[in-house]
Amino acid sequence: MSLITFEESRPMDFIGLGRLCIDLNANEIHRPMEETRTFTKYVGGSPANITIAVARLGKASGFIGRVSDDQHGRFITKYLEDRGIDTSNVITDKSGTVTGLAFTEIKSPTDCSILMYRDNVADLKLEPADIREEYIKNAKAIMISGTALAASPSREAVFKAVELARKHRVVVFFDIDYRPYSWSSREETGIYCALVAEKSDVILGGREEFDLLEAPYGPLQKDDQATADRWFAHHAKIVLVKHGGDGSVAFTKDGQSFTGTTFPANVVKTFGAGDSFAGAFIYGLMNGWDISRSQQFGAASASIVVSSHSCSDAMPTAEEIQAVIDKHTSR
Amino acid sequence: MSLITFEESRPMDFIGLGRLCIDLNANEIHRPMEETRTFTKYVGGSPANITIAVARLGKASGFIGRVSDDQHGRFITKYLEDRGIDTSNVITDKSGTVTGLAFTEIKSPTDCSILMYRDNVADLKLEPADIREEYIKNAKAIMISGTALAASPSREAVFKAVELARKHRVVVFFDIDYRPYSWSSREETGIYCALVAEKSDVILGGREEFDLLEAPYGPLQKDDQATADRWFAHHAKIVLVKHGGDGSVAFTKDGQSFTGTTFPANVVKTFGAGDSFAGAFIYGLMNGWDISRSQQFGAASASIVVSSHSCSDAMPTAEEIQAVIDKHTSR
Amino acid sequence: MSLITFEESRPMDFIGLGRLCIDLNANEIHRPMEETRTFTKYVGGSPANITIAVARLGKASGFIGRVSDDQHGRFITKYLEDRGIDTSNVITDKSGTVTGLAFTEIKSPTDCSILMYRDNVADLKLEPADIREEYIKNAKAIMISGTALAASPSREAVFKAVELARKHRVVVFFDIDYRPYSWSSREETGIYCALVAEKSDVILGGREEFDLLEAPYGPLQKDDQATADRWFAHHAKIVLVKHGGDGSVAFTKDGQSFTGTTFPANVVKTFGAGDSFAGAFIYGLMNGWDISRSQQFGAASASIVVSSHSCSDAMPTAEEIQAVIDKHTSR
Amino acid sequence: MSLITFEESRPMDFIGLGRLCIDLNANEIHRPMEETRTFTKYVGGSPANITIAVARLGKASGFIGRVSDDQHGRFITKYLEDRGIDTSNVITDKSGTVTGLAFTEIKSPTDCSILMYRDNVADLKLEPADIREEYIKNAKAIMISGTALAASPSREAVFKAVELARKHRVVVFFDIDYRPYSWSSREETGIYCALVAEKSDVILGGREEFDLLEAPYGPLQKDDQATADRWFAHHAKIVLVKHGGDGSVAFTKDGQSFTGTTFPANVVKTFGAGDSFAGAFIYGLMNGWDISRSQQFGAASASIVVSSHSCSDAMPTAEEIQAVIDKHTSR
Repeated sequence: MSLITFEESRPMDFIGLGRLCIDLNANEIHRPMEETRTFTKYVGGSPANITIAVARLGKASGFIGRVSDDQHGRFITKYLEDRGIDTSNVITDKSGTVTGLAFTEIKSPTDCSILMYRDNVADLKLEPADIREEYIKNAKAIMISGTALAASPSREAVFKAVELARKHRVVVFFDIDYRPYSWSSREETGIYCALVAEKSDVILGGREEFDLLEAPYGPLQKDDQATADRWFAHHAKIVLVKHGGDGSVAFTKDGQSFTGTTFPANVVKTFGAGDSFAGAFIYGLMNGWDISRSQQFGAASASIVVSSHSCSDAMPTAEEIQAVIDKHTSR
Repeated sequence: MSLITFEESRPMDFIGLGRLCIDLNANEIHRPMEETRTFTKYVGGSPANITIAVARLGKASGFIGRVSDDQHGRFITKYLEDRGIDTSNVITDKSGTVTGLAFTEIKSPTDCSILMYRDNVADLKLEPADIREEYIKNAKAIMISGTALAASPSREAVFKAVELARKHRVVVFFDIDYRPYSWSSREETGIYCALVAEKSDVILGGREEFDLLEAPYGPLQKDDQATADRWFAHHAKIVLVKHGGDGSVAFTKDGQSFTGTTFPANVVKTFGAGDSFAGAFIYGLMNGWDISRSQQFGAASASIVVSSHSCSDAMPTAEEIQAVIDKHTSR
Repeated sequence: MSLITFEESRPMDFIGLGRLCIDLNANEIHRPMEETRTFTKYVGGSPANITIAVARLGKASGFIGRVSDDQHGRFITKYLEDRGIDTSNVITDKSGTVTGLAFTEIKSPTDCSILMYRDNVADLKLEPADIREEYIKNAKAIMISGTALAASPSREAVFKAVELARKHRVVVFFDIDYRPYSWSSREETGIYCALVAEKSDVILGGREEFDLLEAPYGPLQKDDQATADRWFAHHAKIVLVKHGGDGSVAFTKDGQSFTGTTFPANVVKTFGAGDSFAGAFIYGLMNGWDISRSQQFGAASASIVVSSHSCSDAMPTAEEIQAVIDKHTSR
Repeated sequence: MSLITFEESRPMDFIGLGRLCIDLNANEIHRPMEETRTFTKYVGGSPANITIAVARLGKASGFIGRVSDDQHGRFITKYLEDRGIDTSNVITDKSGTVTGLAFTEIKSPTDCSILMYRDNVADLKLEPADIREEYIKNAKAIMISGTALAASPSREAVFKAVELARKHRVVVFFDIDYRPYSWSSREETGIYCALVAEKSDVILGGREEFDLLEAPYGPLQKDDQATADRWFAHHAKIVLVKHGGDGSVAFTKDGQSFTGTTFPANVVKTFGAGDSFAGAFIYGLMNGWDISRSQQFGAASASIVVSSHSCSDAMPTAEEIQAVIDKHTSR
């Protein structure tokens, strides 16, 4: 029996909401970006990556967001369409915004950094009027990225989307996805993310991200079970705390917890690990798999993506993921 | 038996939070402001007025807010202290803000308007760090004004205060108090006010104000009972819908409703009617009175204030209110 | 023979450009503003006051500026019209601005201060398109207030007005009128004011104001003659350095200097001294009087205004000024 | 005899001031950028390109500007240093800015466009305090790019630099370099560029750029000679009006004009034509060459750069330019 009920009759499985960006990945790696001369362009942004992952696994997916009215915006929309993702709610922003950029620097598998361009970006211009009740109520699940809360009017659009999702029993996934760049303060981040976490069915985040949400309201406990219980007191059914290379622990409202493992990988960079995990984990839950199997599927997907130069382009199929699991698990 | 439980052991009865302003009331009335040459200065702002009203009725009161670092800010703080209101959480803002102003124009008792100065005001600089758990947990009740949600960081400070109030069973009163000036859009107003209404025990507003909160989430019903039921599904126990000169209707979670009346008055202006009503109504509830008696007390208080030139200065004592009730009710 | 040539055939004598504000003068004086409860409203702002002064002396005057679309804006426009000042180039700003305010505090004749409201003010929304070549070329002289340079688009409007004035041989008066409030930095002030000073025929300012203009370009000399010479190397004919209660020194391009005196006064407050001086001094120059007589006329006018509660309302007639001179000068 | 006198004793020949950017040039050309997947990174920005050109020709050069405190900023500084350009006045901006970007799209030699990232850029944070009198007075010439006037505080820094250059007889070159992106309005552009043009010795721009400077002050004449005369009435000695593929016309204060030609080229893209022309033209003037020879040298340099994939990297040596001239001119 499943903790979470997806409304099976809905035509759309999954909607991503929020950031649609461009990654510019250094072609010459293992050096500082100052010494890099060429870059390859990919679609990026955490909710974009997760949606691409879910669609790659065969789920009917769509996206709610805004893109810039230029070559980068058109590239993103075309890419999503080519991947079979519905873009009827991807709006071209006409206010002179640009697409967010992430230049990635890969000095070594464990020393990666990102140079972000997040000023005047189209994705944060998502506004409440862009959130259409008709679109949301046709879906089984929606994924909110915390970064979409970083500024108005996108912040208000998120609250509207979450409320409409609850109204229509659309399962709300919330990925805290903390990126300091666009926020005014850590306390602002914690306060708004907590308001969304209260209304979410499944919450994903790292230990430090959950701490952000608790910090305004008393001394930090830094206790995963206490964190999970806090959100179970609201609407959450699953709280997944990520511990980087040490895997993740999933807590469920019925009092259980599940420790996930990781798979060996030829790590090129760590970017994309979380997004590929999330996509495959959600896929498992939507298939009615138990938590452990969903976590395992997520971890295997992550092991594939961290071995690749890109994030979005590298999202694997179910067969590719299963092959990794088969290879590494004893029979 | 009371719908609402106040924690009787707390030393402070009531905390107001939000706007602390200056009213500049035209001395020469019954004419356009262009022809007015002199103005009298009063403390104003809806939560300030309500707190002054509650304090005047004898309740131990305090305030959470920011004032400008100038003569107007010092005037406000001094005025509150002179009225016996605790100002230990009224913070002097050092960032170069000013005090909000409201120049009032009284052309006739039914034709009043306000010229607002709301740019760069100190009250909207209230920030999460100003919200002290110690202060809130010592109180029985807190009053949130919707205007404090109009801009950051005051908006985040409100969410923090409400959450801490809930954590410590401090009764949350929410006065929607819609003032278009500081908001970006009506939809923004509705979305944030709804998030606070969900967490409030008692909600006060006009019909149009409640419509604002419902507009983002489906066709308007414009039905007071449906509105009340919406918030009873969250934490509300009392929803009071104000209908201007026609009085108010209070709905309670146990399914009852109470229609309030008004008292005759020599109306000078309509400003301050709502704040004086709210102050006396809250006073009644905190005394454990039933809804009807509290409404009547509120209406009698309003009849006194609308007959006066000022708002804050005119807030009556319990004896003065009772005298009005005695005069107009048959025995 | 006159240093400055006014184009006698022009129908308008004088145009003021820039700030149109409201002064709210404390009625109860000799105390801190915190203890003041009533205020009287006057038209204010340095270029407004100077223009009112010049018009009061009988010169055909007009104004280029923006007022707010509210009761304060309408009061100002009506007041100028009642004083016979042409308001055909006073534009009502429709962008939601307010009128600048100055609450005056008069603790003692020598301890006066001002509490300014300068956020989102209409006067700084003056824009280049508001500057009409036809209007300027019909005038003999124009007065620029440095405060109009404090922000865009008013700053650009000033540069356009000055350039058109030069094109049509309209005499440019420049009053540095430094008010820190609206500027980003002292260096910004100095740089823009210097660009206008270069193009001005007559420059008025205090020693510290002239220092601001020189500071970006080398060590300060604090030498009035050197200051005057600096601007004579551009277009200036007269440079008048004000030394507060010690009077003023006027330098002329032909190498002369004239030390002005002051007249005894029953000082109520020091506000308005500079504006009344400037108005009467300009009146003298426009009449073809020599520098000394113009300075004397200015000083006598100032002595009248500092003895009064208001600035704009107190601007004297030529007869009133002459009476002061007659009373205090030996025959 | 030369129209322009360079102070021969100065140790530095040439200072560029303003924009230091990154060009990201599409590697796959002759297609829309949507279909491009890889980009090559170059230093860009008009004044950077001109300075690199002048330095490549052997002149002792330096730069006044701000770069971002990140990998892109460090790349730019390093590149300039590698080219022998003094970077002691290139300041690392610590306020969280980014480097401006220009993604270039080359659909065909005649259909090129640029996608600009100009929000929150380091170069426009240049401030008056960055302008050091000591640095400027050691140079023979300075080049101002009009883009540096697009926003404060860079705008004020330019005015300070120009004034100090005039004070020390440093020859002021002004390239109007109009880029709509960062400006509020065309009238704002015209007004500020005209203020710099008034103080410049040599002004370079296209016909439409000169029109921008004249538009605020009367009906457009669209007459190159009239344009030149306008600026000769101030400080200009040479006014060069560029007519794109049709070459340029240089007007001199002594009443002459010189029509420049162009050289045949295998055009890859048109970007960089103006900057390479300007660099070589300035080099000619600084060598004391006559106008015609300087123009010819500029045109030959441009023919080399438009045949290349990059701008900054392609700037030629004097020998390379001379070879083009020799090849195409009869003997």
